[in-house]
Parts: sequence; structure tokens; C-alpha cells
Amino acid sequence: MINEKLPKIWYGGDYNPEQWDADVWAEDIRMFKLAGIDVATLNVFSWALNQPDENTYNLEWLDETIDRLYQNGIYTCLATSTGAHPAWMAKRYPDILRVDAQGRKRRFGGRHNSCPNSPTYRLYAPRMAAKLAERYKDHPGVLIWHVSNEFGGYCYCDNCAAGFRTWLQDRYGTLDALNKAWNTRFWSHHFYDWEEIVPPNELSEEWGGGRTNFQGISLDYRRFMSDSLLECYKLEYDEIKKHTPHLPVTTNLMGTYPELDYFKWAKHLDVISWDNYPSLDTPVSYTAMVHDLMRGLKQGQPFMLMEQTPSQQNWQPYNSLKRPGVMRLWSYQAVARGADTVMFFQLRRSVGACEKFHGAVIEHAGHEHTRVFRECAALGKELQKLSDRILDARVQAKVAIVFDWENRWGIDLSSGPTVALDYVKEVHKYYDALFKLNIQVDMVGVEQDLSGYDIVIAPVLYMVKDGYAQKLEAFVQTGGTFLTTFFSGIVNEADLVTLGGYPGELRELLGIWAEEIDALLPEQRNQLVMKQPFKSGQQAYECGMLCDLIHLEGAEAVAEYGMDFYKGMPAVTKHAYGKGTAWYVATSPEPAFLTDLMNELCAEKGIQPVVKPTDGLEVSSRTKSGETIHFLLNHRAEPVTAELDGNAYMDMLSEQTVAGSVEVPARGVVLLASSQA
Amino acid sequence: MINEKLPKIWYGGDYNPEQWDADVWAEDIRMFKLAGIDVATLNVFSWALNQPDENTYNLEWLDETIDRLYQNGIYTCLATSTGAHPAWMAKRYPDILRVDAQGRKRRFGGRHNSCPNSPTYRLYAPRMAAKLAERYKDHPGVLIWHVSNEFGGYCYCDNCAAGFRTWLQDRYGTLDALNKAWNTRFWSHHFYDWEEIVPPNELSEEWGGGRTNFQGISLDYRRFMSDSLLECYKLEYDEIKKHTPHLPVTTNLMGTYPELDYFKWAKHLDVISWDNYPSLDTPVSYTAMVHDLMRGLKQGQPFMLMEQTPSQQNWQPYNSLKRPGVMRLWSYQAVARGADTVMFFQLRRSVGACEKFHGAVIEHAGHEHTRVFRECAALGKELQKLSDRILDARVQAKVAIVFDWENRWGIDLSSGPTVALDYVKEVHKYYDALFKLNIQVDMVGVEQDLSGYDIVIAPVLYMVKDGYAQKLEAFVQTGGTFLTTFFSGIVNEADLVTLGGYPGELRELLGIWAEEIDALLPEQRNQLVMKQPFKSGQQAYECGMLCDLIHLEGAEAVAEYGMDFYKGMPAVTKHAYGKGTAWYVATSPEPAFLTDLMNELCAEKGIQPVVKPTDGLEVSSRTKSGETIHFLLNHRAEPVTAELDGNAYMDMLSEQTVAGSVEVPARGVVLLASSQA
Amino acid sequence: MINEKLPKIWYGGDYNPEQWDADVWAEDIRMFKLAGIDVATLNVFSWALNQPDENTYNLEWLDETIDRLYQNGIYTCLATSTGAHPAWMAKRYPDILRVDAQGRKRRFGGRHNSCPNSPTYRLYAPRMAAKLAERYKDHPGVLIWHVSNEFGGYCYCDNCAAGFRTWLQDRYGTLDALNKAWNTRFWSHHFYDWEEIVPPNELSEEWGGGRTNFQGISLDYRRFMSDSLLECYKLEYDEIKKHTPHLPVTTNLMGTYPELDYFKWAKHLDVISWDNYPSLDTPVSYTAMVHDLMRGLKQGQPFMLMEQTPSQQNWQPYNSLKRPGVMRLWSYQAVARGADTVMFFQLRRSVGACEKFHGAVIEHAGHEHTRVFRECAALGKELQKLSDRILDARVQAKVAIVFDWENRWGIDLSSGPTVALDYVKEVHKYYDALFKLNIQVDMVGVEQDLSGYDIVIAPVLYMVKDGYAQKLEAFVQTGGTFLTTFFSGIVNEADLVTLGGYPGELRELLGIWAEEIDALLPEQRNQLVMKQPFKSGQQAYECGMLCDLIHLEGAEAVAEYGMDFYKGMPAVTKHAYGKGTAWYVATSPEPAFLTDLMNELCAEKGIQPVVKPTDGLEVSSRTKSGETIHFLLNHRAEPVTAELDGNAYMDMLSEQTVAGSVEVPARGVVLLASSQA
Repeated sequence: MINEKLPKIWYGGDYNPEQWDADVWAEDIRMFKLAGIDVATLNVFSWALNQPDENTYNLEWLDETIDRLYQNGIYTCLATSTGAHPAWMAKRYPDILRVDAQGRKRRFGGRHNSCPNSPTYRLYAPRMAAKLAERYKDHPGVLIWHVSNEFGGYCYCDNCAAGFRTWLQDRYGTLDALNKAWNTRFWSHHFYDWEEIVPPNELSEEWGGGRTNFQGISLDYRRFMSDSLLECYKLEYDEIKKHTPHLPVTTNLMGTYPELDYFKWAKHLDVISWDNYPSLDTPVSYTAMVHDLMRGLKQGQPFMLMEQTPSQQNWQPYNSLKRPGVMRLWSYQAVARGADTVMFFQLRRSVGACEKFHGAVIEHAGHEHTRVFRECAALGKELQKLSDRILDARVQAKVAIVFDWENRWGIDLSSGPTVALDYVKEVHKYYDALFKLNIQVDMVGVEQDLSGYDIVIAPVLYMVKDGYAQKLEAFVQTGGTFLTTFFSGIVNEADLVTLGGYPGELRELLGIWAEEIDALLPEQRNQLVMKQPFKSGQQAYECGMLCDLIHLEGAEAVAEYGMDFYKGMPAVTKHAYGKGTAWYVATSPEPAFLTDLMNELCAEKGIQPVVKPTDGLEVSSRTKSGETIHFLLNHRAEPVTAELDGNAYMDMLSEQTVAGSVEVPARGVVLLASSQA
Repeated sequence: MINEKLPKIWYGGDYNPEQWDADVWAEDIRMFKLAGIDVATLNVFSWALNQPDENTYNLEWLDETIDRLYQNGIYTCLATSTGAHPAWMAKRYPDILRVDAQGRKRRFGGRHNSCPNSPTYRLYAPRMAAKLAERYKDHPGVLIWHVSNEFGGYCYCDNCAAGFRTWLQDRYGTLDALNKAWNTRFWSHHFYDWEEIVPPNELSEEWGGGRTNFQGISLDYRRFMSDSLLECYKLEYDEIKKHTPHLPVTTNLMGTYPELDYFKWAKHLDVISWDNYPSLDTPVSYTAMVHDLMRGLKQGQPFMLMEQTPSQQNWQPYNSLKRPGVMRLWSYQAVARGADTVMFFQLRRSVGACEKFHGAVIEHAGHEHTRVFRECAALGKELQKLSDRILDARVQAKVAIVFDWENRWGIDLSSGPTVALDYVKEVHKYYDALFKLNIQVDMVGVEQDLSGYDIVIAPVLYMVKDGYAQKLEAFVQTGGTFLTTFFSGIVNEADLVTLGGYPGELRELLGIWAEEIDALLPEQRNQLVMKQPFKSGQQAYECGMLCDLIHLEGAEAVAEYGMDFYKGMPAVTKHAYGKGTAWYVATSPEPAFLTDLMNELCAEKGIQPVVKPTDGLEVSSRTKSGETIHFLLNHRAEPVTAELDGNAYMDMLSEQTVAGSVEVPARGVVLLASSQA
Repeated sequence: MINEKLPKIWYGGDYNPEQWDADVWAEDIRMFKLAGIDVATLNVFSWALNQPDENTYNLEWLDETIDRLYQNGIYTCLATSTGAHPAWMAKRYPDILRVDAQGRKRRFGGRHNSCPNSPTYRLYAPRMAAKLAERYKDHPGVLIWHVSNEFGGYCYCDNCAAGFRTWLQDRYGTLDALNKAWNTRFWSHHFYDWEEIVPPNELSEEWGGGRTNFQGISLDYRRFMSDSLLECYKLEYDEIKKHTPHLPVTTNLMGTYPELDYFKWAKHLDVISWDNYPSLDTPVSYTAMVHDLMRGLKQGQPFMLMEQTPSQQNWQPYNSLKRPGVMRLWSYQAVARGADTVMFFQLRRSVGACEKFHGAVIEHAGHEHTRVFRECAALGKELQKLSDRILDARVQAKVAIVFDWENRWGIDLSSGPTVALDYVKEVHKYYDALFKLNIQVDMVGVEQDLSGYDIVIAPVLYMVKDGYAQKLEAFVQTGGTFLTTFFSGIVNEADLVTLGGYPGELRELLGIWAEEIDALLPEQRNQLVMKQPFKSGQQAYECGMLCDLIHLEGAEAVAEYGMDFYKGMPAVTKHAYGKGTAWYVATSPEPAFLTDLMNELCAEKGIQPVVKPTDGLEVSSRTKSGETIHFLLNHRAEPVTAELDGNAYMDMLSEQTVAGSVEVPARGVVLLASSQA
């Protein structure tokens, strides 16, 4: 449990009373109670207010707010306010301002704006955290710490340049090792002195938002920046822990945010929390995947849904309203996949500046007679009723999909073979196939122990890190099913090619050699012709984007190309290896192929869904103390009948026993409890 | 009359003899006479020529030119030459160079390139104006002053930053007031010292050409920049007036140019002048609207068409020729809507640099035997014939459309609810509906007295300024018809939301509450289902972009939504208020709806066109001393028959009496004079 | 012959052994021999390796490499390594770093990164060339010098600004002359001191990557930058020639690369070499045209194909594989059009950084059992068999197409009349028509003697340089057929309009006057209606983009416009002038018109192809010592039958005699030798 003081699904969100006059505060409390809100995130962006100069701290407003909330039964998720520095600090200590990828020194403005290697930031941010921790260490209302906000954004200033050189010295030891890792004999890049190294941005090696001349340099800078920001987090974390060692500490992550290696970060968070802002056209399975990824960051530990909007956003091009029921539906989606909190940005809508058109529990109308408030209040009541029954329950999956930020950076930075390759999209294609089959999936990092899984899928495993090929071999050797795809096994952690033939270190496991990689134009397609169709599968499928031209070296062809000069060459292979099987999908297939393939793989392993797959119906399950709760989520605007397996279940919300089938209302949710894990 | 020395529609344009050798000048005069040209705008871009250093002024060429023209019956519109500073000045006084929105200090180049807060510019530009005014104050050839040229372009340099702080001190008095107006408790923006404030550009609060983190800051910077440039104008104006208090002074505006608040500027211009450069795909009604807007800047006072091209432009992507007759047609369109001059850029086409492919009365061929010259000369003759008959005649409208630059800035800067909202386009939709019905419209600012109008339309009145709601209430109270739309009544002048429910200050007048605002994807549509169709109107219409979800609070539903979860909610309402009616259109409808709606509103008020609406036929009227002249403008490539009301008219060009109907030739013009106002 | 030491078509490419450990080198040699490789380009990007500081030169690795290759029968194309400066140099001498078009001082990174006016670069680059020349002057393995690499890239730093002013003083002598040439009375640009002049970039006169306020300034800066980079080349050239006066010197050009005036550069190259990287969608005739252009740079002298990829590229969006046979086909295409070498980038694929996914003779697999290697080896054997039979053979053409970089700059910089005009594309339209007819073409510069041609075509001859109109008149006078198009004869070398009527200096020759130029929208079209159709031609054709409105002044109308207000005006004219004819095509016609027109022109001159035009079959011929070799290149994926003229030929590869017709295999090549020139 995140904090036993509040043994239920936490319900609340960001709250900024400092933006309002005192007469509004009582009204806030009244409405929070109406809505069943029991946690408020405070102090996210109050640094300027809290600290008017180097040595003055004005925290009385915060004392009063925490007290007032606590006295009314509302706990505090206490932020450290360091997500945006004060203007006076920027003016007096310009080192806190970033230099951007275009090489421009920024001036005061925005948020998430501090240079992570700024001595000023590294002095004042942890000092603020220490002040707060010391001040509130004994306050019974404080549930959890929230460090800064949505860490992110790179800097290219001279302090960062110096930090980068030190980081490189730590990593490589000698310039010889660095020159080798970066292959600097290419294009006359040999470095004779650490001081010759400059950050890779649009003034040096990069252009167009992430194209680069030197993959090794750019990859290391991403690592360095992720580490630099993590260092800032840790400095605050350490100060807080000095005073409140038993209170959990988190910072809100952003799903598949590209700039930070969240698996590395997760080790330093006591609990994962994240902000879920799907766009109108985000596939439901994509949101599900990201929840699973957030859960995977700490090996399945329940996480916090720290932010979502009750209705609409402001920063998307077209900010549609969440349709009636959708806020509740998506809240349960988070819970179904491991969230133990449902929290909003924000509780009261701001009156000015750029987020004033972002939805809130209390809208500009200011009263409870709004659709949005009614839906929030209804959910609040439901969550109170559920109490602690779901808390700490774990998702149990036999299928894992590998996700790795450094691999993603490597692919994003690659010059060739195609601009069409999007790692996250490719991972999602595999996830989506399993999602449609109602198969539970864990999203795992490369450090994950694989022994608990039957099937491991690693789409586009371009970068194979030290020892990972061996881990995969051991997994298959002992009976596991492993699958990877085109453009895998290409490079090591330094982005240097594994010579001798693709897929490099994975070649023996997969039993193939990929001689060439053809890149197709956007409108071009090839075909996967099945040697033998899958059960109720097609004879042939479309494929495209990249086509590896492979030769069998022990593997067997499952499908071959149907067109072009490589017609008849293997396109999908399986390789018996030890007690298991290793699959290779040499191209990017149409979704139907992946559904049929995943169906086949799961069938071989006897992995079955509890609910028969039905279009628009999402299923996810959590288990605790022998009880499993199945979440049935209907994303359609019409009711759907869910066909269950042979067992009887308790409908937790209606408190009826159901068996055989159950109707899930339009955009509705059914929670089925079963003592059969 | 702008200047009684030339009591006819002025005909001429920009003339740059300084770019040519003396032998060309005589030829110029010969051809001007052939073309009936009687006014030449001189000295627009001659600063470098006029002033080779700090203290030397070489104006002999100008003396000679003004004399030569005057001796040949051609008057001078005398520019002050400060629209582009000399290279020597940029080199010696770099403060005159701007810093752009990307934070880059510019170097010498281009035009309209001076920092409006540069001490150098503010020293030398008014000094030049003073020199010229003193020198030519008694010259009989000078008709009018033309300050600088097409003012515009923002700067973000340190002088502007300092100026901004002073401007803010004037506006807000205290930092407390400023912090409140900008809502700086959001994102840690509290300012403790004026010096902490920096201009909002891409290094601080803005990005992507106008997106911003702080609407209040960005809005104020637009106000400040508009004021700064206006200050530059006024410095010259004041110097000129010292010497020639009786000569009118203007500067050429640019229609709906977004950067300057022309209603504020207009107070300091003796006469409005503007440059009309429609693109090939500019709707004819858009040009009409802009003429009406320019006329509205000074409450209907006739204006100057300062520039148009006789044939083609150079700076558009595809610079098509004006088809035969179109130059004349569009010239009369300007006159029909209030222009008392027809002037070109330019009289002789330049030989080098970027405008050499811009059309001119005298083309590169250099003689009169061109289509363009023949058309210019024919029009010149016609205007001589019209003499002073049209001069000072006023357009009389019973319908006003409100246009406000600060409201526009607020909408443009808004983060959410949709990027699709374009204020000017939305205003034009309403204008266009009335244009098609041949209903005369005044484009008015928010300071306009409304008592003379029957109908006032304020599309997307997002920002309601102090006292404006009361003015609108009084207008309706006494019998007026008022109409506004979705996303109105949202904020005050500081862009702070009016709390308590949209449309805020307009809520009582409109008798509705807008609970939510849905933003539709570009391809999404909803429906307006009429409770009762308009006369010969449809049962339902398409609508889209934004849909307010409104509740009736006294108003009556005229149409309701036909789809989605808000099907059946009111979409168009009318509210009986005092003796009048207040309409609300909660979404952006298809044009057919607006035409039918405007027809209904005008019919209610008994507003009728003189000429039956006919596709492609534009009608506008001007009245003086009891005589009204109706301009019938055929924008089609075929003749059109105009059906008149029952009266008889005098065709001013053919000098025939007409009644019943009259044929307007393809791309032709008919002027019907009537003594019935 | 480029160098008589290797009297055959050179075969090899870029080789970077310094990127590899010593154990790879022996394998390289073994595989080079398998592939028939006899030349390796060394030292292209080794400056940092070669020179660790100001005074140390480490060239032992190069000594050994040249020796090892030579001992194994492989010659060296020796690069000077100055295409990318070392990091230490950038750090110690920042003047070597460029300032880009956005005005940003760059930092170390990339390649082709040195300021051409940097004192540091101009000191160390020629010194390196001198060191190398002195060291290897007597080495028998060195065949040719390769200065730097792919010269290009502009700089806008203060050293360049100073250089520009000096260059301008040389060109204009006085500021008066400069002010006149630049027409600086426009927009207040008069310069009183040379120091007032700044480079035209996005901080001064330009924007959007090549739009400018002052065409004259921007045009001169292009000339200056081309000259500055040429100066760098010449500094190295001169040092080399001091030591090895008899060895040829080249640098690799890039086809239609826009930044450098290659006709001016060509005078300083002993032999032209270039890098051919067609995209997947590059028309075959475009590549042919560029080969012809490269051959034309030195009046038909055979050139080097310095680089091409054996399989795929890395820097295109979608890097498709060259289909089987295509590498050979395109290699012969180069030879067919004048290449005496076939060389690759690169011989072994790099292991890291941005070109690791660029194809190579030796792929990452590292062995010879790849499709790509097999194709390379097969071609190597064929080239050995051909020996010196093709070397030095000349292409003989009776048709010339004029191509001029300064004219191109003028057109690109023009503001109006249309953004759709692309000079190179327009030239290619004419080339393509002749290509389809199997008519041999020379691409020539404006200094080319025209007396050897029957037909000269100068599409869009916007800028007519001093004396060129007279040269064209003389050509037609004596019987030649000349053709030019719309937007020709407009300006002189300073981009100042030739007054009096377009097409200016060409007006008398063409017998027309172009009164106006209409620009059409992208979707707009007009028609060319033939007065009398061409033989088997159409009655009418489509045309668009620009339409000159012309009047006949001695010429005869061949076609007239079919639409719009200029319907019936001449659109294509021919003018009998002396013994010849001058044609004017007043608009941009559809391809069918150009094919029919070119057919007509060639028929009039009795110019006939050897092989009947067949879709997909390219034909080009080279002649030496009375023997002509016809290259038949089938670009289709099916075999094609080529119908020959009445003569018998020797098929050089199969060594069979053929007559009447010959089948060319899918993507195959047939070389027919004939002793009839």
C-alpha cells in the first residue's frame, strides 16, 4: 500500500488554492466533500511564492492549506515546487536558464525550465525540498512526496558541456576508449583532449530535431541528460529522506516520454506515478500499453494515476470533451492495469494563463451543477465503496513485451534505412494484437527476469546490450517462446554494428542470417505468403516498411515474401532452440497477421483469456490474496455482451452473481470478482 | 474633403524618380498626363539618399521633383522616408536594429526594420519629418503627409524590454496589480521587481509564432508594441503639425494586419489610408469587408486607397495578372465603400531588387502601348469626369459588425479549445452573408456609438471590455437586435476568465448559460436542427469547429443540435430583452444558415437592399447632400442583369436614365444616382 | 587518358582502412582482388588522424596503405583529407567554424564545416596538401589527387563579410558602381562606405532559405561564396602542382548542386569527377542529363564517376536496395555518357556513425557471399575485359542545351512571378524530350562555342550575360536553330531588367515582344492550339505555370493560347533569322508537346537516332578513332527489343555480330561497336 493512512483508492488531484482568494477555499472544501475527494496535490508550482529571495521562505499559506484539508479529511500529496524557478532567480543567477537545441540561451519563462547542471538549481532546489521535509515531517496530513513536476527538457549550456565531459570520463575512462566507442576516425572526429568535446545540438552534430552525424555522441548525450535530470531528482529525494524516511517519494512520469530512461529512473522512485493524457485519436490499447509500461517500471508494483483531465485538455489542437462516462471508464482502465489512485489535473480550473481551458473538477461555473462535477462525484462514491479491496492487487501475465529507452534512442537516431520506423508504434502493434485477444501483457525492461513468462516479444531489438542475447538464449533454452523482428541485433550499446551478419548476437538463437534490408516507399507493400496458414488464418497478408532478406540457418520458414526480387525468401521464421522456440518476423505486417500469430503462440502455451475477445471490450485482471478481479471495460457507445468462461463471478458494483455472460453498458464498466486466481 | 486643392477622386500612386536618370523624368510626366494622374506619392524610401550622415540633408532632388510635378498639374503626397533606415545609421547606431522573435539581433537589411524604442530612431526619424515639414510647408504642390510606410514588425531588444517595463508601470501602477492581472501564481511566475520582466518571445514565453504560456504577458506585449510603433508615428506627426497644421497627415495601413490596433491608431490619423492587395483567391466580399473596416476606423469618414497594383504583385506565390477590367472594377469597389482616392503602387516599375516584378502603371516596356497603361488611362479619364460628385459622400448602414484587435489577440493567443478558430474568418462569415444579401454593413470598433444601428453583430466576442456588456444591454433594451456567438463573454481585458458561467458578462443579456465547449475534429460535423425553419430556409444545417453546450435561462431555442450526446440541446437562441432581441449562435454554421438567419433578422427590421441579390453582383451605396449613388459591381466574367427597386436612376457613366433593371457588363460597373437617400 | 598507368576503366572507390584494425586489411586485399578492384580513394576524412596538432603530421599509416595496395596491384586516388577539420583546430582557432545562414556561430561537428575565408583553414589545408604532395610525389601507386571532398556550404562570419567587401571592390571598383548594380535607391539601401555592407542572410536580407529583398546582393554573395570555396580548392591545387605537375588533380562534384558555379570551377580541375546518388524516384533521364552536364563542364572531356553506392544509401527517407542488375546498369549509364571510371562509396561499410547503413562493396557480413559483392565482382571482370577500348572516346552531339548556374541563381532568387518555376526541372523537361527520342545532347555553359551544333536550346534564359545575345544571333545567322522559352531575356548579369520590353536583348533574334507574364495557380492550365499540327502530333496540348503574352514582331505563330483572355495570342513562335530559325515557347508545355517539337526540330536538321525510340531503353554513344560504341541500356524489368538502323554491329560483351534488332535483357546492357562514326 502506498501509504496505509488512506487505505483505499486515492481520489483527488492537483489543487492550487494559492491562485485564489480566501473566500474560495471554504467552497473548495465543500465541493471536495461532495465529490468524495480525499487527496490533494499541493505546491506544484509555488516556488516563486514560497521563496521571494535567496534566504526567505514563506510557507504559511502551505501550513494553513495542509491543516485545513486535513481537518476536513483530505490528505496532501506534497510537491516540492521546483518544477519552475522564480523570475528573480533567473535574473540573478542566469546559469539556471537553459541553452536550447538551437544553441540559444533562454530567458525567464515557461516551466520545466531549469538547467539540470546549473549550480544554482542544484543548490536551491534540494534546499527547498529540505525545508519542506523538515517543516512537514510530522504532519499527519502528508501522505506522499511529489518531487518537482514532469521532469524533462534538455540543455546544452557550458555547465552541461562540462558535466558531459565528466560523465564521459566516468563512462569511458580514456579518450582512446571514447574515440573507439564513437568511431571517431569517421569524418575526422578524433578527440585529443576532453575539452574538445561539445554537446551535440543544431550548432554541432544534430539537425531537424534529432537527426545526427554521430549516433554515439548523440546517444550518450541522451543518457547524460536523463542522468542529469535524475541527479536533480535524487538530490531532492535524499534531502526528503533525511527527514521522512518512511514517507514514499515519487515524481510524475509521462508514459512513453522520449527523453528519459524511465527504467533507470524507476529504481529511485518509491512508487511510480504518471500523467495520462490520451488524445482524441489515441487508440484505447495504446493507453492500456502505457499503463502496463508504467506498472512494469517497478516489476508490477501498483502505481499512481497522478493526473488525468476530468473533461478536456487545452494543449491539443482540437480539445474535445470526454463523452459522458468516458472519464469513469478511463479511470477504471488505469485501475484495471495497476493504478491504486485516480487523480486529476486539476481540482479547480485556473482563471488565467495557458491552462485556463483545461478541464477541472470544479469548472469556471464554480458550482456542482455541471455534468463534469456530477460524473466526478459519482465516481468518488464508487471508489469509497470499493475501499481497499483492489489495493496492492497484482496483474499476472504470462506474456512479456520488451521496451527499452536506449534501444529507442538508437533507432530514432539512426540514419537509414527508413524514416518510417517508429519504435513505440511498432511495439504497440504487437501489444495491440494481444490486447484484442484479451491476453494480459507485462511491459518489461531489459533487466527484467524472464523466468516467469511463457512468451517474450522484443519488437525491433536493434540494440542488444551486454549479456542480453545470453539471457534470451537461456529463456528459450528452458522452453520459452521468444519473438523478435526485422532490424534487430544490429548494434551494441555504443551503437556500433555487430559485424559478421545480422541479426548479430541473436543470429544463433534465431537460426537465420539477414543479408540485406530493403526499405519500401510509404505506398509500397509486399506480401507474407504462409507456408501453412494459421488456424482460421489467411493464406497471405500484407507487409511493408522494411523487409529483411533472410537466409535460413537452422530456422524453418513460416511465411515467405510474395513479391519483388526476393519473392520466395523467408519472411517469418521459427527456430527450435533447446526446449523453446525463437521467432523472427522479418518485416512489418498488417495487424491481422499479428493477431493470428499471437493467437497461435498463446494457444501453443495454453494461454487463454477469461472473456472471449469482443470488439471494443477491454479486459484486465488484478489478483490479491487468492481473489482475482476482472475489469470489463466497454469502449463502445453501445452495450456489449461479454461471454465468460465457465465460472461464476461476483459483480462488485451491482453485487449480483453472474455466470455465462454479462452485459457491459455503453462506455460502462463491470468488475467481476473471483476467488480463482 | 481630404484637401480642397484637388476636389476630385485623387488618381496616382507611388513614384520613385530618384531610382531613374533625369532623361526618364520628362517621359514620366508625359505619360502621367496621358493617364490622368494628378497625385504622386514621393519620398517613401529615400532616407539613405536624403541623409548621408548625422547632419547632412540632401533634399534638392525632392525640391525639383515636387516642383516639376506641380508645374505639370500633379500634386504630391509627401512621405517622410523613415520606413527604412540608412545602412550608415545601422552601422554607427546598432540600437536601431531590431531583435526578432527568435531573440536574434538583426543586421542591416530589408525595410520596416527599425526598433520602435531605439533612441536613434526616435531622434532621427522625427527630425527628418521636421526638416521636410519646414522645407515644404509653403509648397502649393503638397497635398498631404504620408508618415513612414506600412508600420509594423515587433522588436524584443533591451530597449524594448525597458520600454515594456515602463509601459507596464503606467498600466498597472504596482507589481501586485500586474501579478494579479497576469495570474502569475500560475507556474511560479510571481514578479518581485519590474526588472525581472522580459519580453515574451521564443526565448521566454512564446513559440511557434504566437503560442504562449502566459496570455496576459503576450497580450500586453502586443498592446505595448502597437503603442510603441504608434508613438513613433506620433513623434513625426507632431513635428509635421508644428509647421503645417492645416495639411492632413496619414500613414498607410494594411487592412486586417494583425500587429497593430488600428482603432487606437485611427484617432491619430487625419485621414485613413490603406494598401489593398487581395490575392487571387481572396473572396470579393473579404475585400469589401476590409474597405468597410478601414472606413469604420474613423466612424465612416471617407478614406484613401493609397496602394493597389495595376496588374500583378510579386510577393504572392502565384502572381496572376488582374484580368482586363478587374483593376477598374476593384478601384470602384474601393470608391463604392468609401474611398476618395484611387492610387497605385507604383507609377513606374523598378529595374532591380525585389519589387521589379510588381506591376506598375508604366511597365518595363516603358511606353503607353500596353494593356495595363490603357486601362489606367481609361480609368483616369473616368475619374476626371466624375469630378467631386462622390467626394465626402457617406455610406449609410443599419447593420454593424463589431471588430476588435485586442479581442483578436486574445483569441489568437488562447491555448485551447481549438486551433481551427480564426477570428477574422469567423467575422467574415457573417459579413459575407450580409454581402450576398446586398445589405450595407458598417465595421465598427467597441467604442462605436451603437444608437444608429438596428442590428449589431459581434462574432466570437471572447473578450468583453469594461462597460461593453452594459453598452450592448442598453442597445437591446431600446429595441436593437444583437447577435453574438460561441466562445463569447469568456474573459476581461486582462484575459482573465469571468467566473460563474459562460458567457460571463453577456449571460443576462443572452439569457443562456454555456456549460461546456466541445471542440470538433476538422472532419467532424454536427447539425443545427431548426425548431421552425426560417422562411424558405432549410429544416437543418451543418455546423462544426466549436459547439457550446448551453442551457436556456430565459432565451428561447431557435435551433438545437442534431447529433452526439448533446443532441437536443439548444444551438441557436434568441432572447427577448427590453424592446429588443439578443441572439446566440453556439457553433460555427455553414454559410447557408447565416444567409437565412441574416435575411430573417433584416426582414424583422425592414432592412431591404436596393438591388435584388444576384450571384457575383456587389452593391454598395454612398450618399451626399440628398443624393445617393449606388455602385453595381459585376465580379463575373459574363454580364449580369441587376433588378432594381421601383425607382428610376441616372446611370452616371452612360448618362442614361434607367429603371426596373440594368445590365452590368462582365467585370463592369454601373453607377446609379438617385436623389432618394 | 586520366592517367596512363591504369589504361582501363578504373574500378574501385572510397577506402578507409584507418577505421579498422590491421587484421581486416589482408581480408580487404583478398576481396578487392576477387572484385577486380584496381583503385582505392584514400585519406578523405583523416585530417584529425593525420595531424594531432599544429606541427605534427602522422602519415605512416598512409605510407603503409598506399604501399600495401600498390604491392597488390591497386592504385591510389589520394585525397588531401581537408574536407573536415580536426576538433582541436576548432577549439584553438574558432575562426575555422562557420556562421550559418541564421547567423549562428557553429561549434565543432559534422563535415564540410570550415569557413572558406578562415585564415586558419587557408593556412593548414594547403599546408596539408603540400605535405602529402611532397611525401608521395614519387610513389608509383598514386594515380590522381582528390582535393578535399564535395566542396559546399556557405558561411556568413565576419571574415567572410570582410572578404565579401574586398571581392566587391574588385568587381565594382567604386561604391557608385555597386550602388547602381544593386539598385540601392530602392528601400533606402545606398551605401556610403564599404564597411556598411553585411552578408545577406536571415539576419539581414534573406529569409526562408533563399528568398531575398535584394537580388543583386544575394546573387553576388553566391558568386563570392562559390569563388571563396574555389579559392580554397586552388590553394591546395597549387601546392600539389608544385610537387607533382604531371599528376591530374580533381575534386568530386555533385551534379546539379546549387551552391557552386561548376563551369567556373571546371577550369581549375584537370579532370571532372562526380558523385552520383539518384533517389528511388529520380527519373533515369535526369541522371543521364547530369552525366551529360558533368561531361559538358570540360567541353566533352571524359569524367570520373567518383562515387555511387553499390546497393542502398542511408540519408534518403526510404533507402531502397538497388534491384539486381541496377548497379551494373547505372554504371554503364555513366560510361555511356562519358565516364572513364566506375567507383563506389565505399569499399567497406563502416561500423559506426551516420553512414553505417550506406551500402558498400564489402558489407557488414564481411565476406564475399552476398548479392552485392557478387554483382560488384561480375562488373569488375567485365570492365577488365573491356580494357582501354572505351577510354577517351567522345560523345558526339548535334544538339546542345544551355545550363548556367548564375542564371539559375537569378531565377531562384526572383521575387515573382511564380514560386513554381524550377530552372533545373524546366531544363530537364527539354532534355527528357530529346532523351526519349534517343537524341544525343551536350549540356553546355554560356562560354561554349556553338558552331559545332545544329540546335541550341536555352530554357528560361532569364539572365542574358554580356555578349551572349550576339553569340546566339551569330549562331542562328549562320543556320542554327535556337530555342528559348518564357521568362527569358529579362535581366543582365546584375539582375537589372533590360528595359524596353521583354525578352530584352533576345527580342530581335526572336522577333517577338512579351508584354505581360501571367502566373497560373498550380491546378490551372491553358492550352497550346497548333496553327498546324506537327507530323503525327496533336491539335492541342496543355500548358501552365507561366504564360507570356506575346506579340509578333517578325516571328510566325506556331501555336496560340486556347483559353482565357489571351486566347488567340501566340504561344509558340518561330522566327526566320539569317539562315537559321529562332523559336520561342511562351509557356511551360506538357511533355508530349516537347517530344513532338523536338522531333520536328531534329527532323528539320536531319538528326536521327541509331536505335528507334523505345520506352525504357536508353541509348548513348561514344566514339574514338573512327569506332563508335552504342550503349543500349534497358531500364525496364522485362527484356526489350531494340530496332537498329540498317547497319551491322559487334556486340562487345557477347562478341556476336548483330543487325536489324537486338534483345536487351531486363535491366541489361548491350554495347554495340561500329566503325561508322
